[in-house]
This record gives sequence, C-alpha cells and structure tokens, in this order.
Amino acid sequence: MSQVFVMVSVSADGFLAPDGMDLEHWGDPAYKNWAARWSALQAWVFPQKFFRENLKLGQGGETGHDNDFLRRTFDRTGVSVMGKTMFVAGERSWPEEAPFHTPVFVVTHEKREPWVRPGGTTFHFVNDGVPAAIGRAKEVAGGRDVRVSGGAGVIVQALNAGLVDELHLAVSPVFLGAGTPLFRGIDADRVKLAIAEAVSSPRVTHVRYAVTVA
Amino acid sequence: MSQVFVMVSVSADGFLAPDGMDLEHWGDPAYKNWAARWSALQAWVFPQKFFRENLKLGQGGETGHDNDFLRRTFDRTGVSVMGKTMFVAGERSWPEEAPFHTPVFVVTHEKREPWVRPGGTTFHFVNDGVPAAIGRAKEVAGGRDVRVSGGAGVIVQALNAGLVDELHLAVSPVFLGAGTPLFRGIDADRVKLAIAEAVSSPRVTHVRYAVTVA
Repeated sequence: MSQVFVMVSVSADGFLAPDGMDLEHWGDPAYKNWAARWSALQAWVFPQKFFRENLKLGQGGETGHDNDFLRRTFDRTGVSVMGKTMFVAGERSWPEEAPFHTPVFVVTHEKREPWVRPGGTTFHFVNDGVPAAIGRAKEVAGGRDVRVSGGAGVIVQALNAGLVDELHLAVSPVFLGAGTPLFRGIDADRVKLAIAEAVSSPRVTHVRYAVTVA
Repeated sequence: MSQVFVMVSVSADGFLAPDGMDLEHWGDPAYKNWAARWSALQAWVFPQKFFRENLKLGQGGETGHDNDFLRRTFDRTGVSVMGKTMFVAGERSWPEEAPFHTPVFVVTHEKREPWVRPGGTTFHFVNDGVPAAIGRAKEVAGGRDVRVSGGAGVIVQALNAGLVDELHLAVSPVFLGAGTPLFRGIDADRVKLAIAEAVSSPRVTHVRYAVTVA
C-alpha cells in the first residue's frame, strides 16, 4: 500500500519559502533577495552526491545522512503532487529533463493536456482538488509512495484531510524572517504528530514524524 | 566567561505559547483551551526526574536525554532574564519556592523592590531594557551562564542584539495553530545559526545552535 509523505526544507523560523518567491512578485526588484534566501534554505541539498547525479551536474558530492535521505526520498516516490505556484516556479527553473522521472500531479484550475518531459516526467493537470489528486496518485504509484511536494497550501490541505502518513522536515539552520509559513491553517486540534526519527548533520536537522488525524 | 543561552519549548509550527496565554486574555473564556495547549507543548518536561525533584513533586521520573538537558540547563544557569508577561504568568503559577534558586532579572517598566522567595530565588525588576539586563546578569552570574527565559520579545531582542551564544530549541511534536511565534521580528539577514547538536526522544527533539551576528 502506498504511503503519502511530505519532505520539505523549512527554515528555523518555520518558513517554506522567502517573501517574493510567488507568482505576483517574481522579478519584482523589491524582493530581489528571494533567490539568495531560497538558496540558503536549500543549501544542504546542493552538495549532495544524489542531487548532483540526478541533475547531471557531474561526479562527486557528499555522502552521508543528508544524501541518504535525498536518495531514499527519490527512490520511494512513485508520484509527486504539487500546487500551481510550485509548478509555475519549477517550469521556469527545472532543466529540460525535469528531476522527477515519474508522473507529477499538478493541482490547478487550469485545463491543460499532460506535459511530457524527457527522462520520464509527465505533468498531469488535475482540477478536482488535493484529496482527489492524492487518491489518483496512489492508484498510479505502482506500489511506491506519493510525495506531497508543496507548496504550503497543498501540504496543509493534505495534512488536515488526514491524507499524510509521514512528515519529514529538513530544518535548515537559517532564519528567513518572512515568507510563506509552512503550517499556516493547520488544524492543530486534529492533526497529531509522533516523532519517528531526528538526525542532524552540520548542514540540516531531519525530523521525521508519523502523522495521524484525530 | 558566562555564556548567554536560550532554552525553550516550541511547537512544530513555531509557537512559543498558545493564544490566550497573555495578560489581556488570561481567564477569557474565548481562550479556555490555552492551558491544555500549553501543557501539550511542555508535556516532555513533566515526567522528568529533574523536574519532579526541583518542584518537590516526589521521587521517580524519567532519566535520559530529556532529563539530562533539564538538569544541565538548571546547573549551568547563574541568572535568568525574563520579560514582564512571563513573570506575571509565573507569579500566578509558580509554587512559593519558585523553581529558579538564583537571581532572576525581570525586564519591565515597573519600579519594584526585589522580591525574595524561599529557596534562593530573588526577582530583580530592571527598567533599562534587555541588553542592560543581560549585561548586569553576566556580572552577577558567578561564572555560571545567563539564561534568557522568554518571552518571545525578550528572546528576539537578545538574538538581534548579538547577545545570545546558544539557542536550544526543544521542539515538541504538537501543532498549536496560533499563538506567539517564537521568532517574529528576528533580524534574518544578521542572525546566523550553526547546528551544534540534534537529539530526539519520543517526547521531543532538541536542537542546539551556536548563534552569531553578522
């Protein structure tokens, strides 16, 4: 049976993304530091061997817990589910060979034919909301797991709907000060966490929770 | 030389305290769940052997990482520094023998004579702000460390002023959904973290950071 999981980088002050990294402010000079802030948040990923391999950046890279988590996350993922903003941001920045190599369900109001990329990634545009998208994703995950990739709105909807089994936070040792809070709108009285594991490298602290809904 | 450190429990969504746990809303029936939420946030503390000993709740209790962190925090602390709201809340709930057993500096506008409690705790009411309070605390800490206890405003002022050497977060596996964000107002471009340690029990994840200010 497919599990549904979230694995995201989050700042020490709880932001999933810096201010300005959204569709309205993209390129707005008032938010020119968003890319540097996002890079700081994700800094633990870039030197990892798996990341370099997956994006064909060349040999080498770090191995260890951080790399293992990235590789395990990739290996277990049969389908990714993401929101419109994350997709649009990615559409502007992913390489030609998008880094998923699986079906990706984009939850959006837009009607659009599937977008097939070289390397095995196909984006499907689904119009009936997060729970339906996750349900469909489980059907086609081929026994692997469903990753709810983001953004924050999609993650919180999935958590509140009781559809997430595991929440893996990669807590980066940076403050963003402002931006998109990961958990805004969480149904705090119903969504329950149990710590499964916490492991740290000098670059990041991984905390994995089992999630249930009361 | 005394170190200055912060050690607080924080929810998985980054709140230091639930809504309603402030001077205006205390006892307001609209916020009647704050005590249950605060207890969930602090739940890792109550079963620990050190906590039980320190509050004279009787023998027994858990030992392990969580207990060690509590005992080490107590043993290293020569002076605690706290804000007015935290003091007033504590004044209503600490036992006669307040659990500090050291000088405590309360940063407040109120002029008040020192308040001596049985068991070695004396509250001093200081009126010249957080940096001055921390400076004075270091002078009287007798080689032990200065704990910045809270609330969030005092902690962020101390971090932004470059006065904190170590930030120890005890991240509880609970969502609060709303309340006092621990890091609101942090100077994200200047306050830098380096992971020193991350350790987890089933009850809580401890992440300790070394703090510097650019």
